[in-house]
Amino acid sequence: MRVAQMNWMQIEAQAKRDDRCVLPLGCVEQHAYLSLATDAILAEKVANDAAEPLGLPVFPVLAYGMTPSFAAYPGTVSLRMSTYVAVMEDILEAFYRSGFRRIVLVNGHGGNSPIMTLATEWLGRRSDASVRLHNWWAGPRFQAAVQAVDPAASHASWMENFPWTRLEGVVMPDASKPPFNAALYQAANPAKRREILGDGNFHGRYERSDNEMLSLWQVGVEETQAAMTENWP
Amino acid sequence: MRVAQMNWMQIEAQAKRDDRCVLPLGCVEQHAYLSLATDAILAEKVANDAAEPLGLPVFPVLAYGMTPSFAAYPGTVSLRMSTYVAVMEDILEAFYRSGFRRIVLVNGHGGNSPIMTLATEWLGRRSDASVRLHNWWAGPRFQAAVQAVDPAASHASWMENFPWTRLEGVVMPDASKPPFNAALYQAANPAKRREILGDGNFHGRYERSDNEMLSLWQVGVEETQAAMTENWP
Amino acid sequence: MRVAQMNWMQIEAQAKRDDRCVLPLGCVEQHAYLSLATDAILAEKVANDAAEPLGLPVFPVLAYGMTPSFAAYPGTVSLRMSTYVAVMEDILEAFYRSGFRRIVLVNGHGGNSPIMTLATEWLGRRSDASVRLHNWWAGPRFQAAVQAVDPAASHASWMENFPWTRLEGVVMPDASKPPFNAALYQAANPAKRREILGDGNFHGRYERSDNEMLSLWQVGVEETQAAMTENWP
Amino acid sequence: MRVAQMNWMQIEAQAKRDDRCVLPLGCVEQHAYLSLATDAILAEKVANDAAEPLGLPVFPVLAYGMTPSFAAYPGTVSLRMSTYVAVMEDILEAFYRSGFRRIVLVNGHGGNSPIMTLATEWLGRRSDASVRLHNWWAGPRFQAAVQAVDPAASHASWMENFPWTRLEGVVMPDASKPPFNAALYQAANPAKRREILGDGNFHGRYERSDNEMLSLWQVGVEETQAAMTENWP
Amino acid sequence: MRVAQMNWMQIEAQAKRDDRCVLPLGCVEQHAYLSLATDAILAEKVANDAAEPLGLPVFPVLAYGMTPSFAAYPGTVSLRMSTYVAVMEDILEAFYRSGFRRIVLVNGHGGNSPIMTLATEWLGRRSDASVRLHNWWAGPRFQAAVQAVDPAASHASWMENFPWTRLEGVVMPDASKPPFNAALYQAANPAKRREILGDGNFHGRYERSDNEMLSLWQVGVEETQAAMTENWP
Amino acid sequence: MRVAQMNWMQIEAQAKRDDRCVLPLGCVEQHAYLSLATDAILAEKVANDAAEPLGLPVFPVLAYGMTPSFAAYPGTVSLRMSTYVAVMEDILEAFYRSGFRRIVLVNGHGGNSPIMTLATEWLGRRSDASVRLHNWWAGPRFQAAVQAVDPAASHASWMENFPWTRLEGVVMPDASKPPFNAALYQAANPAKRREILGDGNFHGRYERSDNEMLSLWQVGVEETQAAMTENWP
Repeated sequence: MRVAQMNWMQIEAQAKRDDRCVLPLGCVEQHAYLSLATDAILAEKVANDAAEPLGLPVFPVLAYGMTPSFAAYPGTVSLRMSTYVAVMEDILEAFYRSGFRRIVLVNGHGGNSPIMTLATEWLGRRSDASVRLHNWWAGPRFQAAVQAVDPAASHASWMENFPWTRLEGVVMPDASKPPFNAALYQAANPAKRREILGDGNFHGRYERSDNEMLSLWQVGVEETQAAMTENWP
Repeated sequence: MRVAQMNWMQIEAQAKRDDRCVLPLGCVEQHAYLSLATDAILAEKVANDAAEPLGLPVFPVLAYGMTPSFAAYPGTVSLRMSTYVAVMEDILEAFYRSGFRRIVLVNGHGGNSPIMTLATEWLGRRSDASVRLHNWWAGPRFQAAVQAVDPAASHASWMENFPWTRLEGVVMPDASKPPFNAALYQAANPAKRREILGDGNFHGRYERSDNEMLSLWQVGVEETQAAMTENWP
Repeated sequence: MRVAQMNWMQIEAQAKRDDRCVLPLGCVEQHAYLSLATDAILAEKVANDAAEPLGLPVFPVLAYGMTPSFAAYPGTVSLRMSTYVAVMEDILEAFYRSGFRRIVLVNGHGGNSPIMTLATEWLGRRSDASVRLHNWWAGPRFQAAVQAVDPAASHASWMENFPWTRLEGVVMPDASKPPFNAALYQAANPAKRREILGDGNFHGRYERSDNEMLSLWQVGVEETQAAMTENWP
Repeated sequence: MRVAQMNWMQIEAQAKRDDRCVLPLGCVEQHAYLSLATDAILAEKVANDAAEPLGLPVFPVLAYGMTPSFAAYPGTVSLRMSTYVAVMEDILEAFYRSGFRRIVLVNGHGGNSPIMTLATEWLGRRSDASVRLHNWWAGPRFQAAVQAVDPAASHASWMENFPWTRLEGVVMPDASKPPFNAALYQAANPAKRREILGDGNFHGRYERSDNEMLSLWQVGVEETQAAMTENWP
Repeated sequence: MRVAQMNWMQIEAQAKRDDRCVLPLGCVEQHAYLSLATDAILAEKVANDAAEPLGLPVFPVLAYGMTPSFAAYPGTVSLRMSTYVAVMEDILEAFYRSGFRRIVLVNGHGGNSPIMTLATEWLGRRSDASVRLHNWWAGPRFQAAVQAVDPAASHASWMENFPWTRLEGVVMPDASKPPFNAALYQAANPAKRREILGDGNFHGRYERSDNEMLSLWQVGVEETQAAMTENWP
Repeated sequence: MRVAQMNWMQIEAQAKRDDRCVLPLGCVEQHAYLSLATDAILAEKVANDAAEPLGLPVFPVLAYGMTPSFAAYPGTVSLRMSTYVAVMEDILEAFYRSGFRRIVLVNGHGGNSPIMTLATEWLGRRSDASVRLHNWWAGPRFQAAVQAVDPAASHASWMENFPWTRLEGVVMPDASKPPFNAALYQAANPAKRREILGDGNFHGRYERSDNEMLSLWQVGVEETQAAMTENWP
């Protein structure tokens, strides 16, 4: 259930029935030829697709995340760590105040994953709560399925090219990007990182067939569903 | 143009053509029987409807805002002032880095309006930029149109009940909420504020005809368009 | 009672008798030909004049406030939002620790009014307290009285020219400042704002007779007194 | 010259003539039988008395300071270090923007003196500026004069009992407070500190003759004047 | 070269010869039967052993890090994210001011690795600098060597039991800890995490022979040396 | 007992036996010809030498401190006040969580002493705890011993030249540095401060005999021991 399609009375009743809620974490950043909002779109959609059958409320995506690496690409918005930490603390606290005790962060952007540190700090203060950070694209089942299709898969490659992240009228290069020197890249400033990355695809082809993508998506949805239901402390 | 439907190369080109961009500011908070995301939905839609014909890029809505007054209502998420200030500073800086110099904040939530103070601080450091905060529902033309329909209009009343903020299956009370003691309310803590407000509508009827609402919307869109085009310093 | 004329034993006793206290909020910023401390002077005086007969303690004025708009005028001191929020939180907490539970912020500067958001956040943590922000010059009774005298009234115009804010030896222009383009002004950076405003008066004449001013003051004092006594939650 | 008696045009002209300005730093905290605002009163008065003949502008006192030690005494307001640091940075920056390059902080409260660390940080960024922190009561000349009168002198003792800090109708104890165990006191929490201190006087008699006090004051004013004029880098 | 064995003149000369410097990042946290300072000890030693032959200066270890997960274990000190971010920014800035442009963070604690996000933010402001975060124990060569010895290796297991982290008089259990449910653990609060982990070893035996450990160390040192010399942007 | 030579079980047991623990506070900053880590070395060693016979646990030195004055000297690392305050709060909280209630900060750097203000703030929240800040070199007994040897003693002079802070191969000037104009120095920015100080010694000879130094050290250790045992509230 999208929280955007609920009112406060419904949330109040829901939190009494089930103390779980979901927050998708996205990012607005370069994704080569794909949507700048790719991570936000994917996180929100996979969260909603997974939560719908479970009847869990999914709050609106936090569209902005941490991505200092891509700061030299126009359209990229990066929140400072100190900012993101504050945002997350406020949101967790609000969920808690609303009656939720098990919170699933469905994260669509690698750069956001440090936020689990903040969530753990917060759990030290709210000791009857639990927080799960689910990096949906990095789950073992989804990654196995990706590898089975094509191991050359990465940020802004075919792996993120779904019908809902590709752009009308934008033609994908018919090529496979070779990998770059990761060690050098990781020590570089944002301008040099852009120089190294060029169009922004990290590695691999730019698109694959819809058949392949929709099967993959299904795996992602199911693994995300498992994250919402299994292994709660 | 929704930035979610653009990639970074398109933004780069766009910023060279026109240095304006748009950010809708929303909130997730009690809206009586309406969607918890009412302010986010309205801000994003009015911004997109207004910007589309102008060809201006609209970034994804910042869905969360400042609403400590409603903290006692489940489903309400309030960012602290110190947090919101940090978020806005990061986003403005990112727009600037992307090449934008005239930034329109299309705000859908009264509680967010203090953020203009931060924007002015930021303009002190980025002296070739301009920021306009447009509280879309509070513009003189929109307010005149509202008053012409029904002066008893407020937060969570009919005035915010559009086809895109009302909820399937939720029936509106057929009544008009009387005003409350505003002075008392404004000095009260969140729990007492909930007590005073009850369902959350501030004042007035809960719904009016779609005809009336769609005409109103048109006024809002046009006034927002004017904010994007006129009176730039 | 001015807290500056009390010692801690007297405050301790007072807080037991009556849980109200008062803090005037000022600003040091351009006021055209008037004192840079106009807002601090007026807030402190109106608070003291109002509180004296009620026997309520008035803490020393917080002389500095938020005024990024006037940063290009020498003598203007603007605290960042993040700073002001921190100051106010500390002061509210100190009043609470002193035994006060109903706190009146008598504010003399429009730019400070966003601070009510912080006060409401704080009320979420201190749920047996109340905070009233009284923008003394913006109360309906005071504003009606102003309009009755001369509707062309604004920041740094005659409306703030009292015997206690005008400066020895400074002659006021014998003119009435025409209004400026507010939409343009509000999107502009501090340097452009100074260009637009010139001497700093927003609109209207620079002075009126003492008779008129003293009558007005009386209205302001009475309305401030009402804010201290009526409509507590 | 009190900045409260100047307008922005006068400050602009003044900063061009002489790049020095003065800010008194006070505190609102227990001072035994004396005014809670003792430190603010003394800092502002000594700054004004010293600056007047020199023609230097004195900004309104920052009335609130850092005093966590006295937090258990009603009427005491303590800003957190993180807050005070932010306030001071904003004020220094505003003075700089106004054209001032040599800034004298006339401090009336021992607990504020750590702020020189922040001022030095700031000087690392504003390398054509200088900041002097003058703890007016702790200058060697003033201290010598105090010792000559009565070496048993301390916070809230006779040493701070001037005609402008004592309170109407409050009778001073005719006694001399013995010293307390400073090592124990300094490791104690605020509640225990109050227990140890009792009325709040640290040590010594509560009052001495006006003759003695006015002579002392003269020494303080002269030493503060020297701090404004001598030894600038 | 340990910076602790250098004076400022030597650092000044060194930074002119070679713009690289090294900072070891540690943590004080539970390591089962091993030293609470294990991560600090290892990071500092591997950094020094690697830098010595290269003649690179190694600053004193930042002994404290981010470890909210272990907050329920006595002796664990966890800096908040917001704190650690501030510390790192100050240190990077100081290295830059000292003349260094290529900075190697030799990190000994997994919980610290989010700090690369801050370093990348910083590189956005200091665009002629580079920062490498080297998680010394997680390098591919070291990990391969570990796996070759015994794949059951983890936090506080034999893998961290070197002659310089084990404690006099503390006998290791002669057992191999089975793995725990990682998904459940990662959503749990600190108290539950302690319950799950028990003595604190994550998985595997508690000690292995010194021969094995010293060979491993050599691999770690060499890989750290490579991080200091290769692949600079 | 060095905490680096203990594990968490030992700290848990220790905190039950005795609720005292020790944290040395250092700094990495210019010390003329001596080690950049002089203050960290001395604080840690004096703390360990003093605590060892008492069986009190000494946490690893916080090597970095506040030293904006020396920012123009290469190798100097200065944490901002806002940073240091955050670090200290986190560490105090961690000690408290570990079961310690009496905390001794053995400080080796004058620039760190403002941190007692933060500790007192913290004691306002943790009212069953005590914190002692011991500036080991500034204790009356140590200072008397220094004066007896040679009153010309200061930062980076012979007074800090112990066998464990001097550097191999560095020859000390055979001279006595004359004092500088302290008033001028204290108002100056970091670059000017370096100009004034030259090599960094404040005043006095650069070395004295080991006999004298070891006797002095003994006094420092004993006075630090007293700070750990006497006058607890």
